[in-house]
Amino acid sequence: MASKAKIAVLGASGYTGAELVRLLLRHPRADLVALTADRKAGQQMRAVFPQFSPFALPPLVSIESIDWAAAGIDVAFCALPHGTTQTVIRDLLAKAPQIKVIDLSADFRLHDLAAYERWYGHPHQAPELQKEAAYGLVEIHRREIRKARLVANPGCYTTGAQLPLTPLLKAKAIETEGIVIDAKSGMTGAGRAAKEAMLFSEVSEGFHAYGVGHHRHMAELDQEFSLAAGKDVVVTFTPHLVPMNRGILSTIYVKGGRERTAQDLHAILAEFYAKADFVHVLAFGETPQTRHVRGSNMTFIGVAKDRVPGRAIIVSALDNLVKGASGQAIQNMNLVLGYPETTGLDQVALFP
Amino acid sequence: MASKAKIAVLGASGYTGAELVRLLLRHPRADLVALTADRKAGQQMRAVFPQFSPFALPPLVSIESIDWAAAGIDVAFCALPHGTTQTVIRDLLAKAPQIKVIDLSADFRLHDLAAYERWYGHPHQAPELQKEAAYGLVEIHRREIRKARLVANPGCYTTGAQLPLTPLLKAKAIETEGIVIDAKSGMTGAGRAAKEAMLFSEVSEGFHAYGVGHHRHMAELDQEFSLAAGKDVVVTFTPHLVPMNRGILSTIYVKGGRERTAQDLHAILAEFYAKADFVHVLAFGETPQTRHVRGSNMTFIGVAKDRVPGRAIIVSALDNLVKGASGQAIQNMNLVLGYPETTGLDQVALFP
Amino acid sequence: MASKAKIAVLGASGYTGAELVRLLLRHPRADLVALTADRKAGQQMRAVFPQFSPFALPPLVSIESIDWAAAGIDVAFCALPHGTTQTVIRDLLAKAPQIKVIDLSADFRLHDLAAYERWYGHPHQAPELQKEAAYGLVEIHRREIRKARLVANPGCYTTGAQLPLTPLLKAKAIETEGIVIDAKSGMTGAGRAAKEAMLFSEVSEGFHAYGVGHHRHMAELDQEFSLAAGKDVVVTFTPHLVPMNRGILSTIYVKGGRERTAQDLHAILAEFYAKADFVHVLAFGETPQTRHVRGSNMTFIGVAKDRVPGRAIIVSALDNLVKGASGQAIQNMNLVLGYPETTGLDQVALFP
Amino acid sequence: MASKAKIAVLGASGYTGAELVRLLLRHPRADLVALTADRKAGQQMRAVFPQFSPFALPPLVSIESIDWAAAGIDVAFCALPHGTTQTVIRDLLAKAPQIKVIDLSADFRLHDLAAYERWYGHPHQAPELQKEAAYGLVEIHRREIRKARLVANPGCYTTGAQLPLTPLLKAKAIETEGIVIDAKSGMTGAGRAAKEAMLFSEVSEGFHAYGVGHHRHMAELDQEFSLAAGKDVVVTFTPHLVPMNRGILSTIYVKGGRERTAQDLHAILAEFYAKADFVHVLAFGETPQTRHVRGSNMTFIGVAKDRVPGRAIIVSALDNLVKGASGQAIQNMNLVLGYPETTGLDQVALFP
Repeated sequence: MASKAKIAVLGASGYTGAELVRLLLRHPRADLVALTADRKAGQQMRAVFPQFSPFALPPLVSIESIDWAAAGIDVAFCALPHGTTQTVIRDLLAKAPQIKVIDLSADFRLHDLAAYERWYGHPHQAPELQKEAAYGLVEIHRREIRKARLVANPGCYTTGAQLPLTPLLKAKAIETEGIVIDAKSGMTGAGRAAKEAMLFSEVSEGFHAYGVGHHRHMAELDQEFSLAAGKDVVVTFTPHLVPMNRGILSTIYVKGGRERTAQDLHAILAEFYAKADFVHVLAFGETPQTRHVRGSNMTFIGVAKDRVPGRAIIVSALDNLVKGASGQAIQNMNLVLGYPETTGLDQVALFP
Repeated sequence: MASKAKIAVLGASGYTGAELVRLLLRHPRADLVALTADRKAGQQMRAVFPQFSPFALPPLVSIESIDWAAAGIDVAFCALPHGTTQTVIRDLLAKAPQIKVIDLSADFRLHDLAAYERWYGHPHQAPELQKEAAYGLVEIHRREIRKARLVANPGCYTTGAQLPLTPLLKAKAIETEGIVIDAKSGMTGAGRAAKEAMLFSEVSEGFHAYGVGHHRHMAELDQEFSLAAGKDVVVTFTPHLVPMNRGILSTIYVKGGRERTAQDLHAILAEFYAKADFVHVLAFGETPQTRHVRGSNMTFIGVAKDRVPGRAIIVSALDNLVKGASGQAIQNMNLVLGYPETTGLDQVALFP
Repeated sequence: MASKAKIAVLGASGYTGAELVRLLLRHPRADLVALTADRKAGQQMRAVFPQFSPFALPPLVSIESIDWAAAGIDVAFCALPHGTTQTVIRDLLAKAPQIKVIDLSADFRLHDLAAYERWYGHPHQAPELQKEAAYGLVEIHRREIRKARLVANPGCYTTGAQLPLTPLLKAKAIETEGIVIDAKSGMTGAGRAAKEAMLFSEVSEGFHAYGVGHHRHMAELDQEFSLAAGKDVVVTFTPHLVPMNRGILSTIYVKGGRERTAQDLHAILAEFYAKADFVHVLAFGETPQTRHVRGSNMTFIGVAKDRVPGRAIIVSALDNLVKGASGQAIQNMNLVLGYPETTGLDQVALFP
Repeated sequence: MASKAKIAVLGASGYTGAELVRLLLRHPRADLVALTADRKAGQQMRAVFPQFSPFALPPLVSIESIDWAAAGIDVAFCALPHGTTQTVIRDLLAKAPQIKVIDLSADFRLHDLAAYERWYGHPHQAPELQKEAAYGLVEIHRREIRKARLVANPGCYTTGAQLPLTPLLKAKAIETEGIVIDAKSGMTGAGRAAKEAMLFSEVSEGFHAYGVGHHRHMAELDQEFSLAAGKDVVVTFTPHLVPMNRGILSTIYVKGGRERTAQDLHAILAEFYAKADFVHVLAFGETPQTRHVRGSNMTFIGVAKDRVPGRAIIVSALDNLVKGASGQAIQNMNLVLGYPETTGLDQVALFP
């Protein structure tokens, strides 16, 4: 039997933490040896997430209580809030430089120190690590990730936008002006913090946009899209909240460049992802539903012709907690450890 | 006490029919005297919609069983499927020409016979009535509606798109190319017909687009937007289904024309609707939620600045069964009968 | 035109507060003159509940900022948390003894000081008022309520249990041992406080019981059922949470006493509520759905025969925010002020 | 590598069929070689359930088109409607007597021919097979199942009721009179047939009971409970529909027999299931939530003390499509084929 990596999950009491535990419990080459939580340190995981009652899991402890130098941990997943993560990882890597870190926060996603400061309002606390970090969108940056010690796992919204758009921008197949991304997310994207606006009665039986015109995820899109296009790209992006738990659907409006038709765009994506394990391009004209990827690491992409000449409508669907967070994080771990990329990620979507 | 109009609701066993009954039961100048249903003729309304159990209502009968010439009906609401409606209304008005008809189907919304045939695949069966019909978007066509015998009540999606866009197009304040309307509707918009795709387990806990690139509602938008702009306008429109019962949220992406800023657009809408009873423009930068208009005849509109220079994001929210269908139909009835426009339409939204 | 009472709503930023405002905005003999909130004092109601944006409402203020002696308020609705309410009302009535108070908390529902202390763990802070308060289940205690200055509005769960059971206990038609009430409530019953357990992602797509074996609502049931039966009655009661906003369905298992059949029980209830405006007994064998009373002050009751000889299953449905809270509170106000009982409470249920 | 069994799924276009496919796709010793559907024969599985788009699966064919004698199929899962199943299985086993059949319908659950005829209104069409069939509640009938050629997979409601009650009845630890089972199911239990009553808008945002007093599942309970108790047991059972996709919660009211306390009942269940892989008994006083077993083959059971002396409240939670149907069916297949019972059933629950 192949050896198993020793895994720590930092922030195991949140939704992406729990999703890491769900997936890692069935990963054939991972051993969960440490789980941390802040306010819930001292509790058992089953008290915080009763679905784990039948399983033996390490208790929730504080990050400080772990002796990182001695614990022999191979990989640390970091599912902590934005902003605090950077110092946690800096300190952790200072104590145990050999650990591979997969960070699910936004803290290491931007390569440009100035851009970080502009979007987040304060200078980065670990600038040297920021430079080192690989941006973990596997289908685009596989090569860099394999060599990385620190991987910045992409955001859920931005994964849904990049997987269809980046190949098209690289191929210079669409106009870079006027791109509109209308994204709709399930509620788990908002995390588990107790906020009035996230109560069941506030968000069920209704629909709304938020952060209209100025959402932080745009920083990540600007970086990656400009890199792909070889010039500055600034897209319009509006997130919405859907009364469902999981899923992001992104409806993307583009204009074909250089006389490319919608069908051309479809062909480019179909070829780009022909051998991808976790991106599936539907037949031309078909568009996906979030429920059909629920619980799986899959992204479905559809391309349809708009009736307005020259324009196309692209729709992507993924599970924000899996391909949009914890599943992609494990995909990154697999690369970093030299495992086959799909190891432990073969869940079939749960529908209905 | 003021006199009451005698009302018939055709198609009372569907959702818009039931919503007409809900509203008309409390309308101080309306008397429900006839309810029709097709397959459910012979049943009591309480068997079809148990919420009406405590109320005395006429039984469901077939349309044919009503003696239209003798029944003394003042207003007939027609909540029947598209396509069959045109002959029903033609025959009804042949028998009882004095009846005012408010039609909730799409059959009389297009003024152009050729456009109707192109979009629906067959020639119109009542072309003379098609010419006569007023397009019942009250806030835009109030004058014509007051004089009409037959009013074509607008579609739910198109009401949500027109209320914000028509005043801007009239004012030539936005560019007519590149308008994108990303619309999200609750499930009641799909009606009450038993279809696999509308089962709870098929549509809860998920989100998807449908009719991408070729939805029939576009015909109505083309007609009205081109009329408002004084030139051909062809918008991009994508409908989506939200796992909720009621509500349409339309996220609309526009570019200010002639150097108009988002704030300018907001000012135009705020002025246009300053005295409107059923359209409320939120403060600049705020955007609405469908749940806050649920059950009411209100439309909320918000305007926000996009970070892309020159662009604005406009969001409208309405209840598809009220302002998007039955409430607007009663608003039309009030105009046609010379009642105050708000009569019987003072429901406060039901939230949570 | 009839005169209007001046109304204050204490605790207007919670769900029952907002529901009072929704209903009172359309009450023909009520004038909302004061709204209080604690942490949200200083805000406008539209900021806290955007559905009220189109309406002119008094701003949210603190309770202390109102000059109760001078304000000329006729009725104060008290929608504050259990425990703090009793001192608020004591102080308010000390300053302005002529005000009628309708209290939606549990603080004045128990007549027995010892029972209060036993269930709530501390002595009552306003024992003299506790004695004075009328228990506001209108259909049972109409006469006492008419004369009351202080009405203790019943709990939502207990209203759903008492309306079917109290007439049967009074008639000695069921056995008093072995009564089981299995109750299921929508999420608004838990209020608007930001708690992790009430987040959308924690409570959607699932179902559970809570407070199994020891829910505080039982105190109220013990008092009222024992009063009705003329002897001690202790029922089994289990509350559950349904992923919906509004509604309580109570499935009640009883054994007919003295050879009474299920049909006998149905006949007793049908007769008891024959003239009731807000309680509707369905045909024998039919059982209700919460959605068919949503937004209305109606309670539907159904009685069916169990296959186990001698046993019956009774099901009641109401909207926890209307007949289970704010609607019943207005029904109480109507009685206290000598208005017709149904004034302002003619909302038809919103379905779908 | 261990050999793989060749599997056919009859009725693959329904929800339990799709769930079998989801689970069998990841079962290490199963090979899906045939999928049948009736009206959808000729389609690909991906057209019927798009979640399977990335997978290679046999096309949907009619049952008649399979050459059962020659196909070399080892196991046939039968996920067909009640009533038609018995002749399908009779004919199938006539052609290929060596096939093991796991039937998910109700057709072979009753051993007593007369009871079948009484509950279903017609004589059984394969009485000899009815006698042969093993009742597939694994935790109770493991031994008979191992030897069976035809296994009647239990119903979802009845599994939720039997797992907690059967061990208590066997131990004579509860009174057999007055048992009340109040069960609440997600919507997938109603299947995928297009019925008005199952539309999203009919069942979301509300709650109701159905089949009150006379549900067919009772026949199965009568048989198994009487067998366990050694005397006739007739329970009260009421099913309800929850606006969620998956899950059954059963709240069960019992009276301890022979001075057994709630804690005694808990101890009996905890011991009975101490080594069970798919039944987990929570700590005394804790009760389960359906969401914490979603997508897994697990049943959680909780036992709490009622305040009424001598009474206990027992709550069980399972996923109706997994332990309530397709997961249990695979558990049965594993036994029948001599595989370890848990093979392919290690899914961790998907929450949130």
